[in-house]
Amino acid sequence: MTAAQQQDIGKFVVIEGLEGAGKSSAVALVKALLTSHTGHEPVCTREPGGTPLAERIRDLVKIADPQDPLCDEAECLLIYAARAQLIANVIKPALQRGEWVLGDRHNLSSLAYQGGGRGLMPLVNTLSQACLQGFKPDLTLYLDIEPSLGLTRAANRGALDRIEQQALAFFERARETYLQLASQDSSILVIDASQSLEAVHHDIKQALAARLVGC
Amino acid sequence: MTAAQQQDIGKFVVIEGLEGAGKSSAVALVKALLTSHTGHEPVCTREPGGTPLAERIRDLVKIADPQDPLCDEAECLLIYAARAQLIANVIKPALQRGEWVLGDRHNLSSLAYQGGGRGLMPLVNTLSQACLQGFKPDLTLYLDIEPSLGLTRAANRGALDRIEQQALAFFERARETYLQLASQDSSILVIDASQSLEAVHHDIKQALAARLVGC
Ligand SMILES: Nc1ncnc2c1ncn2[C@@H]1O[C@H](COP(=O)(O)OP(=O)(O)O)[C@@H](O)[C@H]1O
Ligand SMILES: Nc1ncnc2c1ncn2[C@@H]1O[C@H](COP(=O)(O)OP(=O)(O)O)[C@@H](O)[C@H]1O
Ligand SMILES: [Mg+2]
Ligand SMILES: [Mg+2]
Repeated sequence: MTAAQQQDIGKFVVIEGLEGAGKSSAVALVKALLTSHTGHEPVCTREPGGTPLAERIRDLVKIADPQDPLCDEAECLLIYAARAQLIANVIKPALQRGEWVLGDRHNLSSLAYQGGGRGLMPLVNTLSQACLQGFKPDLTLYLDIEPSLGLTRAANRGALDRIEQQALAFFERARETYLQLASQDSSILVIDASQSLEAVHHDIKQALAARLVGC
Repeated sequence: MTAAQQQDIGKFVVIEGLEGAGKSSAVALVKALLTSHTGHEPVCTREPGGTPLAERIRDLVKIADPQDPLCDEAECLLIYAARAQLIANVIKPALQRGEWVLGDRHNLSSLAYQGGGRGLMPLVNTLSQACLQGFKPDLTLYLDIEPSLGLTRAANRGALDRIEQQALAFFERARETYLQLASQDSSILVIDASQSLEAVHHDIKQALAARLVGC
């Protein structure tokens, strides 16, 4: 390994946004860009999920059981349990090995969905501090989209899960929270995801190029 | 329903203690005593668990996966997710219907195991406040036993799960926490569970009789 390679420390890049914003295709693009930038494929994660146990937690969050409806606090705690597990067993070990990590959602989703959408911001802030202890992505690309447009795209993709079936007002609150937090944090870049796929990918490339220079 | 029966408001009684302390047989005894006292079977719960979703969370907590070891924070968050679900969907509705609830473990287990045993007391205190918001049992019977004796009893019962396989020092810290919290809270009664089953049951009957008069 060359000295230059040894200095190449892994970073944590996250793609965020509402349902149907285009996160999955953005992840595919960013994965390719990071691979060509670093010479190695990044470790790709999704949240909630990304470890065997966290994927089982994801199943519990997605299922709608009318006999035992998931209460808002339990939803929040399950998502943080999955995140704690993912950080401890996947993200931090990868970064410590010098690898890059590319996340399909991370803590900003909880701030937006559970904090803004469900109105549980005090609990979410408490759990963020307790579980993350200051750990945060180096760069977050937030794909901003009107909830109705995103949900139409997501519906074309297949049946909607328990979260995707929330009322439009839930996603409006989540979007407001995303935008507000992005305006306060220079590590979060807002991408207009209502554009054509080509235009979105062009903007993502530009954002990454601007931020990856010198990393 | 008579006026007297209508005034009979349900209470929440919890059995606590280390592995093999004798909680399961104490629950059977207390269930019979409460049934004869109130004329109705109490709603019986166990933690973690007690709702379909919470039982699935229990499975996740019990499994030992060497490829994806459960980190302490995730363990703690999973247990509180199960508890939030149980309180919202089982315990509070039962109490509101006027029924009694009898729990095999509750929040004191988290204070002892995750707080004392794992050393996560700040997180446990935070989660207790956020999830319980002051909700607590009317009466807790803590079955006190030396960890080595309890684990010997539990081992005779069958294979030990992930938690039962913790080091003895873990259970020593949990026991200290149980005893310390019991000394500060008059709603927690300590029962010497190292005695014969007959003597333990005698003490439980006496404790319940003393506390149930006038309830
Ligand atoms: N900019 C876009 N314009 C039109 N359709 C898009 C765009 N981005 C994504 N899609 C389509 O919308 C659907 C949802 O996109 P997806 O990447 O799965 O979103 P997410 O992962 O954010 O939920 C997919 O069918 C995808 O092909
Ligand atoms: N006081 C006691 N003396 C001897 N054995 C006991 C006593 N209490 C319980 N046991 C036995 O010890 C084992 C563990 O008891 P159990 O009620 O399952 O404990 P817990 O539910 O607290 O883990 C069982 O086999 C039970 O019959
Ligand atoms: Mg996706
Ligand atoms: Mg038992």
